[in-house]
Amino acid sequence: MGQKMKKIKRKELVRLNPLLDSMVRGPQVILPKDFGSILAYTGLGRESRVVEAGAGSGFLMIMLGNVCKKVYSYERNERFYKLAMKNLERSGLRNVVLKFKDVTKGIEEKNVDAVILDMADAVEVIPTAYNALKEGGFIVGYLPNVEQMKGFYLAAEKHGFVGLFAVETIVREWKVRSFGVRPNTKGLTHTGFLVFGRKS
Amino acid sequence: MGQKMKKIKRKELVRLNPLLDSMVRGPQVILPKDFGSILAYTGLGRESRVVEAGAGSGFLMIMLGNVCKKVYSYERNERFYKLAMKNLERSGLRNVVLKFKDVTKGIEEKNVDAVILDMADAVEVIPTAYNALKEGGFIVGYLPNVEQMKGFYLAAEKHGFVGLFAVETIVREWKVRSFGVRPNTKGLTHTGFLVFGRKS
Amino acid sequence: MGQKMKKIKRKELVRLNPLLDSMVRGPQVILPKDFGSILAYTGLGRESRVVEAGAGSGFLMIMLGNVCKKVYSYERNERFYKLAMKNLERSGLRNVVLKFKDVTKGIEEKNVDAVILDMADAVEVIPTAYNALKEGGFIVGYLPNVEQMKGFYLAAEKHGFVGLFAVETIVREWKVRSFGVRPNTKGLTHTGFLVFGRKS
Amino acid sequence: MGQKMKKIKRKELVRLNPLLDSMVRGPQVILPKDFGSILAYTGLGRESRVVEAGAGSGFLMIMLGNVCKKVYSYERNERFYKLAMKNLERSGLRNVVLKFKDVTKGIEEKNVDAVILDMADAVEVIPTAYNALKEGGFIVGYLPNVEQMKGFYLAAEKHGFVGLFAVETIVREWKVRSFGVRPNTKGLTHTGFLVFGRKS
Repeated sequence: MGQKMKKIKRKELVRLNPLLDSMVRGPQVILPKDFGSILAYTGLGRESRVVEAGAGSGFLMIMLGNVCKKVYSYERNERFYKLAMKNLERSGLRNVVLKFKDVTKGIEEKNVDAVILDMADAVEVIPTAYNALKEGGFIVGYLPNVEQMKGFYLAAEKHGFVGLFAVETIVREWKVRSFGVRPNTKGLTHTGFLVFGRKS
Repeated sequence: MGQKMKKIKRKELVRLNPLLDSMVRGPQVILPKDFGSILAYTGLGRESRVVEAGAGSGFLMIMLGNVCKKVYSYERNERFYKLAMKNLERSGLRNVVLKFKDVTKGIEEKNVDAVILDMADAVEVIPTAYNALKEGGFIVGYLPNVEQMKGFYLAAEKHGFVGLFAVETIVREWKVRSFGVRPNTKGLTHTGFLVFGRKS
Repeated sequence: MGQKMKKIKRKELVRLNPLLDSMVRGPQVILPKDFGSILAYTGLGRESRVVEAGAGSGFLMIMLGNVCKKVYSYERNERFYKLAMKNLERSGLRNVVLKFKDVTKGIEEKNVDAVILDMADAVEVIPTAYNALKEGGFIVGYLPNVEQMKGFYLAAEKHGFVGLFAVETIVREWKVRSFGVRPNTKGLTHTGFLVFGRKS
Repeated sequence: MGQKMKKIKRKELVRLNPLLDSMVRGPQVILPKDFGSILAYTGLGRESRVVEAGAGSGFLMIMLGNVCKKVYSYERNERFYKLAMKNLERSGLRNVVLKFKDVTKGIEEKNVDAVILDMADAVEVIPTAYNALKEGGFIVGYLPNVEQMKGFYLAAEKHGFVGLFAVETIVREWKVRSFGVRPNTKGLTHTGFLVFGRKS
């Protein structure tokens, strides 16, 4: 929040977390509304250690780094890795470790509070995520379509995760003027689904 | 997150932040979905100092305490103050200061990153909130109805806050089963509106 | 429905009733989703006689004309009246009477099943609508913002209308492909509120 | 609409078309919001001839009968058939033909304007629906879950239907009071998806 607010007047369609104002945007990013739900339903906070993959543009990594004690981020695509690294440097965060590694090959951390997955083959990471999590820790999948949501949910349940639930988060912006209040006429109507499960 | 997951099987209608599983519930509380949006659009994190009022049951205070460096919470109603204090003790958080004071009479802190208001007369706190905030800090109002949202938005704008916007956050839960995926048939369709503005 | 389907590939953002494919579009029109709710909650059908105002581009008038026995439409703005008349001629409907008159000055019909108002000063039409309606007949207001919805609702209630309710209708379009199903990412997030009341 | 308004004070959760106030409710019914979208996106009206199946409680059949010139309804389950017949008699409609037949075995009508399917195996009816429709006529599927929506959409497309689209309709009711306007706090968050396609 100490950063310059260069781009605060972005399109209302996609309001960003102020942390991200000066970031370079590459592949599709997780928006604040979905980040908000991740935080809210996992209870992550300043004492939490978190793994996330893939880093992509690094937006989620940076939003998590701003909140959590430690963030370990995996990215196997070299172009995205470089982009995420550039954004990480701009952020000034020192508690985020960005690795140029394929998370499906294994997570090196242990006893983490959450593993958050934003990747097409998130389902492949379920076993290694289970091993990396502490008891009660959360696995979270961010999946753009229903088939991926379903596949991830059922695979996580089968692998032993408990308390599974799936949500979509819709943020509707309102136009407030003295002469009349109404929702914006156009907006985002979908980004992705979130699946949550716990190790127990 | 280190707490017992006693009540994780709560009604799907209102999924709670795991932090709140063992809390006692009094007056209407801010739900995780709205807490998530507050965090996401302000960029609050582990370095942030925040004022919030009124404490009510203390749910927002505790969710903020889990994320931020320091939380100062005001409550003028004695019954709610005692309830919030009880919940604060249960939470084990040591970075939250709960005061039995009327926030409309003044905020004692200076240079805070955000002032978050969940009270019917939030509009009365705008001037003292402005003084308490650092440059670029956020005022956030959580208002149940449109008239309150409008009144708060316009009053904050008039007082000099900039970059105002107002949103509502809708979380829809999905039922995922191998034989068929669909949204839940019933759910929460409204809690409150959030208004955001910045001091500059 | 016997018309040419010239423009069926319109923007997905605003799917139209096929009746409207060849119409000229002027002022903001009532979309099918809102027309659908009007029909559904009033029970209007092939035996119904309906008054609507203002005609605007005539879209609602034409959709109603396609369903109801008789539609009487009022428009006081000459430019809109001519546009609506042009669209009415294109529609080939013979059960719609379009009048170049100010509905706030009075409704000439009696015992109608519904009076449907899509105009900024709809509230001014409440008394004359009451007189024009049969027992059990519906007044319907289509209002873009919350203040107008509230004003119309409360004035209709005060005037003696009963069973009042207000809704907003949101249609979300889905993208269906063999490799993945998800909602469209962008879309309409607001058009107007509908207020319904009955004469009794 | 000429009926008694016995039950107009039903739960706000599920506002009904006034036509349905005195009907007996059996299996899950198509609600007005979805009926409204069916009408709005097909352009059905007082000149239309329509086939629908299965009748279920007969609610959709009756709402269609109130609007269209002729409705042919199929029901293969004897219990539902009797229930629908009872409701049809109560409705007083004379333009609705209710048949105790399995629609998957064939549709007897020709050149109809629409075939509307509300049944688990709607996909089985696609070929016979195609034959029954006139050029430009609509097939409509009402499907509760995503897999059924997808299966129906893709099968209809494969069979030669064009201009396919899929929507969900969400109606949110608002609480309007002089001291404050807000959406209802709880409500329906899902009923079914609608798939539309045209014969050409």
